Amino acid sequence: MRRPDIQFDKAGRLKHFLTIEGVDRSMLTEILDTAESFNGISGRTEKKVPLLRDKVICNLFFENCTRTRTAFELAARRLSADVLNLNFNTSAATKGEPLLDTLRNLESMHVDMLAVRHTDSGAAHFLARHAASHVSIINAGDGHHAHPTQAMLDMFTIRRHKGDFCGLRVAIVGDILHSGIARSQILALNTLGTSEVRIIGPRTLLPSCSRNLGVHIFRDLEEGLRDVDVVIVLGLQKGLMQNALIPSEHEYFQLFGLTEARLAAAKEDAIVMHSGPVNRGVEMDSQVADGTRSVILQQVNFGIAVRMAVMSTVLGGQTRGADRE
Amino acid sequence: MRRPDIQFDKAGRLKHFLTIEGVDRSMLTEILDTAESFNGISGRTEKKVPLLRDKVICNLFFENCTRTRTAFELAARRLSADVLNLNFNTSAATKGEPLLDTLRNLESMHVDMLAVRHTDSGAAHFLARHAASHVSIINAGDGHHAHPTQAMLDMFTIRRHKGDFCGLRVAIVGDILHSGIARSQILALNTLGTSEVRIIGPRTLLPSCSRNLGVHIFRDLEEGLRDVDVVIVLGLQKGLMQNALIPSEHEYFQLFGLTEARLAAAKEDAIVMHSGPVNRGVEMDSQVADGTRSVILQQVNFGIAVRMAVMSTVLGGQTRGADRE
Amino acid sequence: MRRPDIQFDKAGRLKHFLTIEGVDRSMLTEILDTAESFNGISGRTEKKVPLLRDKVICNLFFENCTRTRTAFELAARRLSADVLNLNFNTSAATKGEPLLDTLRNLESMHVDMLAVRHTDSGAAHFLARHAASHVSIINAGDGHHAHPTQAMLDMFTIRRHKGDFCGLRVAIVGDILHSGIARSQILALNTLGTSEVRIIGPRTLLPSCSRNLGVHIFRDLEEGLRDVDVVIVLGLQKGLMQNALIPSEHEYFQLFGLTEARLAAAKEDAIVMHSGPVNRGVEMDSQVADGTRSVILQQVNFGIAVRMAVMSTVLGGQTRGADRE
Repeated sequence: MRRPDIQFDKAGRLKHFLTIEGVDRSMLTEILDTAESFNGISGRTEKKVPLLRDKVICNLFFENCTRTRTAFELAARRLSADVLNLNFNTSAATKGEPLLDTLRNLESMHVDMLAVRHTDSGAAHFLARHAASHVSIINAGDGHHAHPTQAMLDMFTIRRHKGDFCGLRVAIVGDILHSGIARSQILALNTLGTSEVRIIGPRTLLPSCSRNLGVHIFRDLEEGLRDVDVVIVLGLQKGLMQNALIPSEHEYFQLFGLTEARLAAAKEDAIVMHSGPVNRGVEMDSQVADGTRSVILQQVNFGIAVRMAVMSTVLGGQTRGADRE
Repeated sequence: MRRPDIQFDKAGRLKHFLTIEGVDRSMLTEILDTAESFNGISGRTEKKVPLLRDKVICNLFFENCTRTRTAFELAARRLSADVLNLNFNTSAATKGEPLLDTLRNLESMHVDMLAVRHTDSGAAHFLARHAASHVSIINAGDGHHAHPTQAMLDMFTIRRHKGDFCGLRVAIVGDILHSGIARSQILALNTLGTSEVRIIGPRTLLPSCSRNLGVHIFRDLEEGLRDVDVVIVLGLQKGLMQNALIPSEHEYFQLFGLTEARLAAAKEDAIVMHSGPVNRGVEMDSQVADGTRSVILQQVNFGIAVRMAVMSTVLGGQTRGADRE
Repeated sequence: MRRPDIQFDKAGRLKHFLTIEGVDRSMLTEILDTAESFNGISGRTEKKVPLLRDKVICNLFFENCTRTRTAFELAARRLSADVLNLNFNTSAATKGEPLLDTLRNLESMHVDMLAVRHTDSGAAHFLARHAASHVSIINAGDGHHAHPTQAMLDMFTIRRHKGDFCGLRVAIVGDILHSGIARSQILALNTLGTSEVRIIGPRTLLPSCSRNLGVHIFRDLEEGLRDVDVVIVLGLQKGLMQNALIPSEHEYFQLFGLTEARLAAAKEDAIVMHSGPVNRGVEMDSQVADGTRSVILQQVNFGIAVRMAVMSTVLGGQTRGADRE
C-alpha cells in the first residue's frame, strides 16, 4: 500500500485531488458511490448536509470560468461550508501576489481547501506540494493538463446510464491534444475498466504518440462512432484557427461536427455528452445538443453531487458521507 | 379566472414577476401587504425569517447595478436563502455563454430563482418562457421595458405616506420614453386606482402616443406639478446628450430640474421620490433631494421588504409569509 | 472622561475604528485581550461564535486589496455576520455613486458596519462623520493616512512574542512618508508604552519633521537595527521610482533591503514583520522572509482574531466577547 503520490496522505487516503493519475479503481468507485448518496439530497426539501460546517473553502480562480466556479460554490454550500471566491487574472497574480504567497496567506487565514483553476499545467500540483498539512487542494482545471472533477462527473453520468464500464465502447471527439478534460477522462475510463476508449479528431488536434494513452485513434468521425455506447464531445477552444490547427469552424463542423445522421453509426441507445459550453454548429448541431440522447444538462446536475463527494472525501476522509447523517 | 399570462401558474398564482402588466389590483395589494409584514422585521434583533431556507437565489446581472443587486442579495438573505452572484457583461454573454445555455446550467444546478438584470427589453420574459417548472424568474430591470420590483417599492412608499391611491395625483418627471421604471410605475399606479397620473418632460423624452398609457402629459414642469400629492423624479440616463435628446444637463435642469421653488406648485404635503442615484443639479437640486419632503432613502429601505415579499410570493406562493412564522 | 473624538459614543465606548489617534492604552489593550480570546477559537472544531448573528457587514472597497478584504470577510463570518462585498474603482464612485449617497443607501438597507478601504486620506472619517447612529465605520486603510486594524494585528503579534511593550526597541523600515500603516504603528507603539520607536529609510521617504511623531530617525539601516527587538518592514509602493523618490528597486535593496547579514545587528531573538505582500529582493531577501525570525504569516493569522475583536467591540460594545459564550 505504499503510495508516494502527493495526492495521498500516509494512511493512503485522498488528501488532494489533482489528477486521476494514480487514483485506483476502488477509490474512484468510492467517490462515485459517495456522489450517488449526495445526488438524492438535492431533490429533498432539506438540501444541506452539515459535513463541512465551519470549513472554509476558497475558489482560487486565475482563469474566468463561471460554470465551474458556480458548481464548486454550490457544492461547498450544500456541505454547509463557507465559501470564499477569489478571482485573479493571471497577470495580476504574477505581478503582485505570486502563487506561493497567496497560498501562505490563505493557509494563515485558516482556509481548509482550495479549488484551484489556472491556465498553467501543474499549478494545482505546485500548490499541493507546498501546502500546509491542514490544507487540501482540488484541481479545478489546470490548462492542458487535467480537470479531474469534470472527468469524475462524466464517469458518474456514464455509470448512471450504462451501469458498468466493462463492456463499454466510449468515443471522445475533438481537440484531444490541448484538453486537460480529455486526459482526465481517458485515465478515468481506463482505470474503471472501460473496454474500449477511442479518440476522434483531426491530426493536428490528436497526440502524436498515443500508445501509452490506452486509446484507439480515429481520424474519421463516422468510423470512430461505429457501435459506441457513449460519445463525449469536447469544447473547441478559441485560437485554434489563428494557430492554423483548424482551417475554420465551418470546415471543422463539416468533418467533425456531430449530427443526427452521423450519430446513426453509434449504438441506438448511445448517450451524447459535452463538458460545455456547446458551440452549436461547430462541435455539434442543436438537434443533437437538445436531442433525446443528450445528457449534457444531467452532467451539470451531477457535477454538484460529484464535487460534494470529492470535497468531503479530501477534507473529511469521508466516503458515503451523506449516509452517516 | 383564466390567465394565459406567463407570469402565473395554472392555479393563477404568481410564478414569475416580470412586469406589472396583467397583475391585478388584489395581487399587487397582497404583495404590498406581505411587504408590510416583513418591514417590521428589519427593525427586530432577529432579522431573518426561514421562509426560503435551502433555496438558492441567483442574481444574474448582465448590466452593472450595485444598488439593485445589493437589495436583492440582502432581501434573499433575510429570507434565509443562499445567494449566488453572477455578473456578466453583455458582450461576454453573447460570445461564449448565450442566455439560454446559462439558464439551463443554473437550472441543472438546482437554482430556484433568478433575479435577472439585462439591458435588452424582454430578457426576463425570454427566460421565463424557457425556464423549467421549478425555477422562478424575477425581472430586476430589462432596459426600457420594465422594472417591476422598483415600481412596487415606489407603490409601497406612496401607500405608506398617503394611505390610499384613490384620490391621489402623481407626477412622474423626466425621461419617460426610455424608462422601464416609468412604464412599470404608470401601470402599477393605474392598477391600484390612482386618480390621476401625469408625466412631465421634454417632447424628445415623452412617448409620442400616450393615450393608452392612462396618463396626462405635461411639457411644463410647474404646470404639471400643480396640486400633485407625489412627485417621482426619474434618473437621467447617460448618452441622452450625445443622441441630441437633451441639449445639455445644464439646460435640462433649467427646464425640468426640481427645486424648492418649483415644488411650491405641488400640495404642501407632497412627497418627492427618486429611483436613484440622484444627479444633483441635473434632475433636482440637493435642497430637494435632502429636504423634508424627500422620501428617497425610505424607498431604498422599503426596497428590502418589498423584494422579500416578491421573492416569497413567487417561490412559496406565500403571502403574509412573516405572519405565519 | 470627555472624549469629543468622533470614534467614541457619548458613553466613551468605541463606536468607529478610524485611527489609533485618541484611543488610549487601556482600550488598545482591551482590543488585544479580546483578540486573544478569539485567537483560540480558530483552532477549535466549532470555529464560529454567534456574537454578530444577523448583523450585516459591508466590505466597501474603493481600492483593490484582496488580502485585507479576505481577512475582514473571514473575521465577519466567524462572528456569524452576513458579509456584503462591494468593490468600486474610485473613478466609478466619483462618476455615478458619490461616497455619501453610497453610505445613505447602505444605511437604508440596514447595513450595520462598513469596513472602508479608500485611496483618499480621510475617507473613513468622512463616512463616520455622516453615518447614521446605527452604523459603525472601520477604516480598512485610507491611503497615506491610517490603517489601524493592520497596526493592531502588528501589536498583537509583538505582544505575543515579546510580552510587554515596555523595554522594547522597535524599528520600522521603508517608506514611512507615504504609509498609513507606519503612522498607525507608530501611534500604537507609543500609546502602548514602547521604550523606543525608530524609523529607518532614505531621506525622500521619511517625514521632514518627525519630532512630534515620537520616533528616532535613522538613515542607515544597520545603525538603526542595532539591538532592536522588532523589525517591521514596510511594503514599497509602486510609483516611487517614477516620482524619483528612489533611484531603482535594485539600489533600494542595496541600501535598505533586509538581509541575514544586516539583521545580525538586531538582538538575537528579534522578530521580523512585514505587512505583505513582500517584494522579495527589494524590501528583504527570501532568506529573511522565510527565515526563523520571520513572523509574517503569523501576522496574517492573527489578523483574523484582531479584526474579530475590533468588529465585536464597535458593534457590540463587546470586549472579551468569546469568553461570554
